[in-house]
Parts: sequence; structure tokens; C-alpha cells
Amino acid sequence: MGPTIDAVLADDLAKVSTASVTAQLIKRGMRTRAISNIAPVNPDTPRLFGVAHTLRYIPMREDLATGARMAAPDHPQRRTIETAAPGSVIVVDTHGADVSGTFGDILIARMRVRGLAGVVSDGPMRDVAELRRMAFPVFARGNAAPPSYASMLAVDAQVPVSCGGVAVFPGDVVLGDADGVVVIPPELATDVVRDALEQDRLEAFIRRRVEAGASIIGTYPPTDETRAAYQSWLKSQG
Amino acid sequence: MGPTIDAVLADDLAKVSTASVTAQLIKRGMRTRAISNIAPVNPDTPRLFGVAHTLRYIPMREDLATGARMAAPDHPQRRTIETAAPGSVIVVDTHGADVSGTFGDILIARMRVRGLAGVVSDGPMRDVAELRRMAFPVFARGNAAPPSYASMLAVDAQVPVSCGGVAVFPGDVVLGDADGVVVIPPELATDVVRDALEQDRLEAFIRRRVEAGASIIGTYPPTDETRAAYQSWLKSQG
Amino acid sequence: MGPTIDAVLADDLAKVSTASVTAQLIKRGMRTRAISNIAPVNPDTPRLFGVAHTLRYIPMREDLATGARMAAPDHPQRRTIETAAPGSVIVVDTHGADVSGTFGDILIARMRVRGLAGVVSDGPMRDVAELRRMAFPVFARGNAAPPSYASMLAVDAQVPVSCGGVAVFPGDVVLGDADGVVVIPPELATDVVRDALEQDRLEAFIRRRVEAGASIIGTYPPTDETRAAYQSWLKSQG
Amino acid sequence: MGPTIDAVLADDLAKVSTASVTAQLIKRGMRTRAISNIAPVNPDTPRLFGVAHTLRYIPMREDLATGARMAAPDHPQRRTIETAAPGSVIVVDTHGADVSGTFGDILIARMRVRGLAGVVSDGPMRDVAELRRMAFPVFARGNAAPPSYASMLAVDAQVPVSCGGVAVFPGDVVLGDADGVVVIPPELATDVVRDALEQDRLEAFIRRRVEAGASIIGTYPPTDETRAAYQSWLKSQG
Amino acid sequence: MGPTIDAVLADDLAKVSTASVTAQLIKRGMRTRAISNIAPVNPDTPRLFGVAHTLRYIPMREDLATGARMAAPDHPQRRTIETAAPGSVIVVDTHGADVSGTFGDILIARMRVRGLAGVVSDGPMRDVAELRRMAFPVFARGNAAPPSYASMLAVDAQVPVSCGGVAVFPGDVVLGDADGVVVIPPELATDVVRDALEQDRLEAFIRRRVEAGASIIGTYPPTDETRAAYQSWLKSQG
Amino acid sequence: MGPTIDAVLADDLAKVSTASVTAQLIKRGMRTRAISNIAPVNPDTPRLFGVAHTLRYIPMREDLATGARMAAPDHPQRRTIETAAPGSVIVVDTHGADVSGTFGDILIARMRVRGLAGVVSDGPMRDVAELRRMAFPVFARGNAAPPSYASMLAVDAQVPVSCGGVAVFPGDVVLGDADGVVVIPPELATDVVRDALEQDRLEAFIRRRVEAGASIIGTYPPTDETRAAYQSWLKSQG
Repeated sequence: MGPTIDAVLADDLAKVSTASVTAQLIKRGMRTRAISNIAPVNPDTPRLFGVAHTLRYIPMREDLATGARMAAPDHPQRRTIETAAPGSVIVVDTHGADVSGTFGDILIARMRVRGLAGVVSDGPMRDVAELRRMAFPVFARGNAAPPSYASMLAVDAQVPVSCGGVAVFPGDVVLGDADGVVVIPPELATDVVRDALEQDRLEAFIRRRVEAGASIIGTYPPTDETRAAYQSWLKSQG
Repeated sequence: MGPTIDAVLADDLAKVSTASVTAQLIKRGMRTRAISNIAPVNPDTPRLFGVAHTLRYIPMREDLATGARMAAPDHPQRRTIETAAPGSVIVVDTHGADVSGTFGDILIARMRVRGLAGVVSDGPMRDVAELRRMAFPVFARGNAAPPSYASMLAVDAQVPVSCGGVAVFPGDVVLGDADGVVVIPPELATDVVRDALEQDRLEAFIRRRVEAGASIIGTYPPTDETRAAYQSWLKSQG
Repeated sequence: MGPTIDAVLADDLAKVSTASVTAQLIKRGMRTRAISNIAPVNPDTPRLFGVAHTLRYIPMREDLATGARMAAPDHPQRRTIETAAPGSVIVVDTHGADVSGTFGDILIARMRVRGLAGVVSDGPMRDVAELRRMAFPVFARGNAAPPSYASMLAVDAQVPVSCGGVAVFPGDVVLGDADGVVVIPPELATDVVRDALEQDRLEAFIRRRVEAGASIIGTYPPTDETRAAYQSWLKSQG
Repeated sequence: MGPTIDAVLADDLAKVSTASVTAQLIKRGMRTRAISNIAPVNPDTPRLFGVAHTLRYIPMREDLATGARMAAPDHPQRRTIETAAPGSVIVVDTHGADVSGTFGDILIARMRVRGLAGVVSDGPMRDVAELRRMAFPVFARGNAAPPSYASMLAVDAQVPVSCGGVAVFPGDVVLGDADGVVVIPPELATDVVRDALEQDRLEAFIRRRVEAGASIIGTYPPTDETRAAYQSWLKSQG
Repeated sequence: MGPTIDAVLADDLAKVSTASVTAQLIKRGMRTRAISNIAPVNPDTPRLFGVAHTLRYIPMREDLATGARMAAPDHPQRRTIETAAPGSVIVVDTHGADVSGTFGDILIARMRVRGLAGVVSDGPMRDVAELRRMAFPVFARGNAAPPSYASMLAVDAQVPVSCGGVAVFPGDVVLGDADGVVVIPPELATDVVRDALEQDRLEAFIRRRVEAGASIIGTYPPTDETRAAYQSWLKSQG
Repeated sequence: MGPTIDAVLADDLAKVSTASVTAQLIKRGMRTRAISNIAPVNPDTPRLFGVAHTLRYIPMREDLATGARMAAPDHPQRRTIETAAPGSVIVVDTHGADVSGTFGDILIARMRVRGLAGVVSDGPMRDVAELRRMAFPVFARGNAAPPSYASMLAVDAQVPVSCGGVAVFPGDVVLGDADGVVVIPPELATDVVRDALEQDRLEAFIRRRVEAGASIIGTYPPTDETRAAYQSWLKSQG
């Protein structure tokens, strides 16, 4: 069985911001863990988290990229959808494809029924009118009517891939919100997310101060004095 | 007179998805008929169909690209708007322009009054706040304040053009929905659209099955058994 | 003290369209004053105007681009936010950055408290879910979770910059609406905006005529006859 | 018959630099007349001039873009090669194609036999090993093995086109050297080229001064004093 | 053991042009087999052929992309160089990397000693001054000083990859010349290359005719009459 | 006076490779110090080193970007050329300009007379036929005929800039060879260059071993044994 997300981490991932997670990752030397310029197809489902299950495409070759070939049970795209563990996020490397839809409504509906957590593709989606009505987090770059095999060929799954220029390994912890998607090495996830959540709490306090008129200087980044005030406030909140 | 869309085809175009149309075109050897990464300016008017009436721009030359020149009645842009047959879709080749608005609210208002079906441009639109309030399908790539002549020069109309990297001929059948715009050779349109509509019906059935828990394997693409079940269901629907 | 916007100009800027302003600037020989493909993060605050206060970034260098350095009171980003005159628009040259958020919710909240008019960046923003809820005009290109220092280094402020490929000088008059952002040399602003407002009025009249069935030929651009009709109509309106 | 180049203009074009021609065009309000990032395929034939004969491509459509169709005598590509007037420069709008060769060695050999002046394409060439051995000026962007119909469809000729983002009209005067290709409106050509040649002479004098140790200040751009010295020197040269 | 190239095919590959091979592939329905805008680093070694041995990179992750990791004997890059069969062409998918050198002079020297046929990368090379002096065909896109691990991470080998937007499978027949690199499915190679060689011969005859003054019409593409003349000429050559 | 290069460092810079310098910089945490896809205009002068003197452009504004304005003695471009210290490398931030030549032959001739070390621009050069004949290192991206003011405006000098996406500070040590240009923080230069030179020596030894048949495994990166053999060899060389 692959890596999993324990209950504590899941609780934290349900609340933490990708913005703070990226800041915590930079503190640990990782500047390249965020996929930007990507958006939830359904704006009502902007939060996504789970364990990465990767799928890899290369550009199509005309004799191999046909609808008929997709019927084979071991076709990497179909196999991925049917075998990824519940709670997984399917992360797709389209190798730059921008004229084909990675998935359409039927495949996404199947992922949802299977209990997957969501999908992240660096290419477009199709049937987007349908996807906008589905309560399932799908992050993608734009829309395209043609099926994937118009320009793409699925070649394997559960290998390291590039998604939106970011290295993604099977088992990485994936978190998405309105700012995009961040990919966390699993051995760092608990620490990074816990610290990011604490950063979110501190920044909520800072924002309140700023909205009350505080200068950024001394407040953000916080001086020891500001941090002390935050601690008092935290205590006062119980 | 140019090519037209008969009543049967029009009925079908009013219902069919661009996603299925592209799949049917690929079956006929055409992988390059879809304009992606294009969106309706007014999200409430995402459906568009009609016969292509093309308009072609090249980059501007400073002495020719002035507002005054647009007053000439034979200016290609103005002539196109006044002479395109009702039901036409104006398809614009901006040759990569991204800093000028192809059309603004007055020209679009005139198209609507004249009974045109809509507009597709691979460049931006201007007056987009107004266009978002108009019940008229306009597909474009982004927004730009400057008038077209800031960077573009209209040179002719009703010639073969490139729109979004797709070859478009006058008389092609144009269909747009939330997934983008597909351009169908007129001699194929009736067959392609009929088969695509049938595909849409079959896929609606498949999606229902998938939502009820069916595996994709055997269902999508459908085996003979699934197809037989679909036929029974179709009959049961009358 | 820097350049300011007088009450008459402010009144006009509150009503005029960027589309007409660009047309008036082209009449004065300036085709390159509009930033396109940029959008308000909060679609409910699509209007922005004020005097440009510029901020300049270069790509990061690993040893200099750390969160800790941001605490220095003379850090260009922080100093800009704390010292820009109320009514200013912060205009940011990100030098092509697309993987870092230019600003997040705390810094934007501070700008709002300080009475700045808004922000224009040719890079992404972060904390966009928060920004979409704030009544403050922020124009940007997309979203990104990482903090600015993930890939960018603030180096100076109040120098001439490029924003979205457009030259912007401190003191330029900045106007934004749904079509994008236009940057007006201050010495031209009063004239250009007044003429653009008059153009907006004339075009509203023309659009009414077009919606009533008038051909574009003779109406847009208007002949002397159309202009006379407009003058009568203007008078009739008081 | 189309526009031609008289003997005086031809003499000047054989000597003048594209660099000075662009400077003279900017003085006349035209900043957009130069195709950059283009290079002679055969570095030994870097000079090209003649009258533009345009050829226009759009992206291919699979059923139309076949080698067999090229046999038709009225195919725009073939007709252009056989009918362009001797002395013409074939200027090709590939509409962004980068995976097909615009022309190969046989077609270029035919152009040479027919007395054409050269070719400018904003796409790649094929058979470049052969072209590098031919004494014929071919300006292009890179190399590609596939024939044009792999991704392009020739649709017409002798219409206004875009080449490398520059508007080119049939009859424009085309000049190429190691800096790229400049496209001159025919009515300006005699004046622009004469003034550019004079500028070349002046700059040769200035460069000699600079190489002898003169500061740029006062020399380039030249003050009245430097211009007087130039005039004396000119006279001294006879 | 993997696929090989027999003596007859090798003889043909040593003479045939990529231009004709792409034309023969298009006849068999494959328009997407050529990597363009790629060049031999050493212009004196522009011919390359052999069987594809693929190597795949993704973008780096800071903790994994270090020089030290390259010492591991099973590092995919090192293993590929040491184990690829003599006669292989290493085909590299850099996933768009343009700031790191794929290989430098030591690794290329090792490939040469091992009897590999050459290298094709869609990214840059480093130590290019050295590579220009080595009698070994290396096709790449530009130059970059940093080692591969500055931005890339080797993840596996002998899997299907994308090189320059072209699908490449281990065992594909690779052919490079001055026009770029073409990738041939092995089951088609003998036929395609034989027909391409025949096309090269016919086109040499056609070019001679064209240089002697023949019109393209009737000659290229050849009519039956031209083909008959070619057959006579062939016979006369013995 | 600005930073300088002492005699020892200069001696080393005259021999060291950019490839090894980038590897040493990565060891010190800096992956982003190399400008790739840049080439010497004159291939016979591929080595360049000196102290960075920066020059910054933004996109032009039509009323400010004229040839006449360049006559002002305090124009940043002219002032830079006349005042940069002998031995400096002028490093130019063109802010993405690709249609104007950064400098032409007269300005480059003046730099040479003044004893500057060379020029690096991330935009094109003009008068490249002349520059190819001058014994002066000029690194640029392509060629363009128009003068800089066709699309660019010089705004200041000796400020931090971006060149080719790399942060460059006045006083940085700049080194260029056939692989591109690397920019070294001055406080690291002596150590980095010394270690890189040692790396070059070691790699020359390794390459000799590899050419003699050694496997890369154990040789590159070198094991302790290989390093010992290198030390013996070094000693044997005196």
C-alpha cells in the first residue's frame, strides 16, 4: 500500500492555506513546490488534498492515439482511474498539451464515485460545463473540447512526473486552494502543514492588527513584541 | 449565396456538445478542428452556432492604422459587419494580436441587430463590461482596451483564415460551447453532428451508469453488452 | 510632493472608460499605453484610478531572497506600502515573474487602510480568496501561492518601470476597468480624459442609434450629420 | 505590371544597411518595418533586395494538406514560384508554423533559375544543407525536415500578409542583410534609402573618429561641428 | 536484446535525407515524427542514425538534485551511458529545461568510447566548445553552462518519452541531418527509408531538370512523363 | 571606486570554464547565476570577464524614444559608455526587447577604445556584420536592424537589473565563454573561481581517463581512488 495521510494531518490540510505551506517549504530549502496559473474548474470546490497518484502522457503518435485503444483494461488512463486508492489525487503530466481535454465528465464522475480526492492537470479539461456542476475538485489550465487522444498518449502511471513545471512523486501530499496547488514531500508534510497552520493563525492576528491601523513595520514580519501580543491573544481565545 | 444550415442540422447544433463533435471529426481523420483556450465573454451565452464568415487582420502599419480609415464603407471590418448573412458567425484571424480589442460594444450591438449568430476571435475584446451584459455569443481570448487599429489592420474577408491555430474556411459550420469552438467542414456537418448527438445520448446513459457505480471498464468505451443495455433503455424512454 | 489628480480630473476618471482613453492617446501618437490580459482579482472592484507609485523587482538571488530580509524597514516593498501617498496606485514591475504572488492579503489590507487607490501588477497575487472579498482594486495576472521572495527580489521604487510591457513613470495617471489598465502621462491627463469622456457620451448615443437599427456606415465613425444629431440630442438632454 | 525598382534605387539598395534604413523609417513614423531574429540560410549570401511578392499559408487541414494537391498548376505555392516577376522577393506568411519547411532545394533552385531575388519566410526551411551551398539569398527561422503540407496550407498570394509580425504588402521594397529584413513602403523607398545611405556614410566617418579616440558625446549623434568636419572630409574624398 | 538495424537499413540510413523520410511517413499517416529547431553542436557531424535509447528528466527538487547523487551507479543518467547498446542514440526528454546543460564533454566522450551512435536532446548542452571539436553527433537546442542537476532530475530510462514535442519509444529508428531529427517506428523503418532513398534519387534528377530550366509544373511533383524520363535516365546510369 | 578584480582572480578568470563555475556556485546554494541561450556575436571572441556595469531599459514611450534624445550627455546609454571603468562589462537589461538592436558598431567601437571588457545583453545587437569583425566580446540574443529607441528606453544605470532572467548587481564578476555567461557575487569570486579552476584540472584528467576507456562509474564523479590517481598525476606534471 502506498503512503497515506493520517487523521491529524488530514484535519490540518482541511484548514491550511497553500500560501503558508509554500512559505514553510521555502524555509526548508524548497522554492519549487507550487503549481501556479491553475484553477479549480468548479469555483465552489476550491479545496483539494490527498496523496498524489501520478499519470503520465507524451505527445500522441497517430497510429497509437485512437479512441479504440482506450478500451483496453490496462490502458494507463483507465487503469489509473479504476485502481488509485480512495483519497488519492490524480496528478497528470500532459507534457504541455493545450489542445486536448485531459478528462471529461464520465471519467471524473467515476473518480468521484470511487472516492478519489480530486484531480490536478497541467492541461485543459473537457465537458467543463458539466464539471462546473460536479462537487469534485478538478484543477486544470483552461478548457478544450477534443478527447485526450487528439494530441496525447497515456504511457504510464505512478512514476515521477512534471505537473506545471513541478516535480511530483507518487505519494507526495497534494494541497490545492484558490492560489493553486502545492506538492509536499511526504516526510515533511506533518511538520510543514502544522507550522503553516500556526503561520495562518498568526497572520490572521496580524491582519486584524493591520486592519485596525497598525503599520506593517514591526507587525509583518512580526517583532518579538508583536509575537508576544499574539501569544496573549491566543491564550485569551482559549 | 453562401452555404447554409438546414433546419435539421440547426436543431441538432442547438443541442450537441463540441466534445462529441471533435470525437466524431477525429474518427474522420481530423484532429485539428477545435479552438481551445477561448471563452465566451458573457458566460450566460455559451452556445453559438452558424456559418463562418471570415475576417482577416495583419499587424498594423502606422500610416494605415488610424481611426479615420475605418469610416470608409469598404473597410473590411465594417463591410463584414454590414454584409455578413444573418445566421453567420464572424470568425476573426487577428494574427496573434493580444494588445488590441477586436471589437467593442457598438460593433457587437450592430451584429446582434443584423441577426448574426455570434463572433469568434483569437484575440481580445474591448468594452467587455458591456459585452458581458449583451445576450450575444462572443468568444475571445481576454480583454484589451485599445481599438483594433492600435496594433491590427483589417485586410480582407471571406478568405480562408487561421483562428486560434485552426484553419477556417468561409462556409464552415461553427459550433461553440463552454469547451471552446469547433469548426466543421460543411460537407461533413450533417453526419458529424448527427453522430455526435447520438454519442451525447449514449454518454449520458454511460454517465448515469457510472454514477450508479459501474466501472469504466466495459462501460466506457462501451462493450456490446453496454450498448445493448443502452438500446433497451433508449426504447424504454420512447 | 508628487503629482496629484485635481478634483475635476478625479470626477472624470471615476466615469471614463479605458477604451476611449486609449483611443484619445492614439490620436496623440501613443499606441502603447494599455496593459492588457490583466484582470481585477475582485470582480466587484473593477474600477481603479490614481497616481502611479512604482515598485521594481528583479529575479531573486538565493542568498538575498529570504523572508527574514523583509523585516528591514527600508525594504523597498515594505517602504513603498508605508510611504506611498494616499490616492496612489502601486504599479509593480515583476520582470516576468509568474510563480510568486506579488502581494498577499496582509499587505493589501495595509494599503487599503492607508488610503491607497489600488494595485497593478504584471505578476500573480496570493491569498486570492481573501482578496476577492476585499473592497480594494487589485489588478494582476493570475494567482500563485508562494511569497514574492520565492522568485523575486524588490530592488527599488519610484523609478520608471515596465508593467505588462508598458512604460510607467512615477506620477503617471493610472486608470483601470474591466478592459485592463491604461497609463496616461500626467501632462496629457486632463485633456485626454475630458475628450475620452466626451467620446464615451457620443458612443453611448451611437450605440442607441445602432440598437435602433442604424447601419454602422455613417454612424460609426459618425458623419457630420450623425454628429449634428448627437448635438441636438445632447441639448435635448439638458 | 507591379511596382518596380529603378536603377538608382537598385544601386543604393545594393550598398545600404538595414540598420540605417530602419532609423530613416522611424523618422517617418514607422517603427514596425523590421523582421528580426531571422537569418540567411547561406551565410555567404546575406544581402537581398527586391519587390515583395507575397504568399500566404494557414494551418493545414488533414484532408487538404497532401503532397498530391501540390501538383495542381494553380496551387498558390507553385503558381507563385512560376509567375513572380524576376527580381521579386517571395515573402511568406507561415502563420507561426515551426514544424514544416517552407521550401526545399528544388523549389529554391527554380526560383533562382527564374531570376527571383530571394525568399523571406518567418518559418523554417528544409534541405538546408543544400540551400547552404546555393548562391541565393534565403532568409528564414530555423530548419525543419517535413514538407510544408505537414502543417501548412498555401491559400493565396499577392495579398497583404504578416511576416515575422511585420505587415508586408505586395510591391513593398524588401531589403535584407545580416541584421535581418526591412520592408519599405514603395512610395518612400527612394527617399528613405538615399537618406539611409547618406547616414551610412556619415556613420562610417563617425566610427573612424571614435576608433581614433573621440568621445561619443558630440560625435554620435553628431553636433554641428562634427557634421562640418564630416562635410570637409567628404569633400576631401572627392 | 532490443531492436536493431540490419545492414541494408544501415546502408540506406547512411545516405537518406530526413526531408524525404518525413514525406514518406506522412504518406503513411504520420505527420508528427520530426524534431525541428534542433541542430548538431558540431556542424561537421550532421549525420546521425541508430536505435533510440531514451532517458527521461523531470524538473529538479532541491533536495534531490545534487551533484553527489550522480555518483550512484544506478543513477538513470549514468546507467544509461554505461548500458546503452553500441549503435544506440540516446534520446533525452528534458521536459522543457533550458537553463541546464543535458550533458558535458566527459559524458559525451564516454558515449563515444562506448560506440554509441549519438545523442539527441530537446534541451541545451554544456562544454559546447569541447563538443564542437569532438567527432560525435550531438543534436541539441542551444548551450547552457550549469550541470543538468541545476534544474533537472533524471528519473528513468527506456520508457516512452517526448523529445521536442515528438513521441519517442525505445527501439525507434532515429535519423538526424542538417534539417533536424526524425523518429521512425521500427516496423516501418525498412520500407520508409527505402522509399525515401528512391525519392531522394528522383528528386536529384528533378533538381537537375529544374536547374536546366524546367518549370516546376509537370516536373515537381512529377507527371508520368517526367517519371518515364527519370526511369530512362536511371537505366542510362547503370 | 567600484569593485575590482585583482591580478590572481584575473589570471584564473582568463582560464576557467563557466561550466565549472556554475557547479561551484550550486555547491554554495546558487542555482540561478547563468545566462543561457546567449552567444558571442563574434565567435572568435568567446571569452569575456570583468566587473558588471549595469544599464537598464524599459519599453519605449513614443514621445520619449527618439534619436534626438540620445544626444543629451546624460542619456543613460551614452553616459554608461563614456563613464564605465576600464575593465567593466556592460550588462544590459532590455526587459524582453527582441525587435531593436541594443548597440551598433559605433557604440561598441567606443567601448573597445575605452578599454571596457565587453558587453552582455539579453536582447539583440545591430550592425552584426561589423561586430563579427571586431575583436571585442559581445554576448547577445540574435540580431535586429532597428536602433534601440525603436522599442526601448534607457532609464538608468548601475542599479540591480535582470539580464536573461538572472539578477545582476553592479560590481558582480561576469564571466562568459561558449556556454554562456555566469554572474558571480564579488565576495565569492576568488574562492569560486579557484575551486572551479581546480575542478577544470580534475575534469581534464578524468576526460583523459574516459577517453582511454574508463567507465564513468567510479571516475566521474571521482571516487577517492580516482582522486588519488589524479593527485599522483598532478605531481608527475610538476
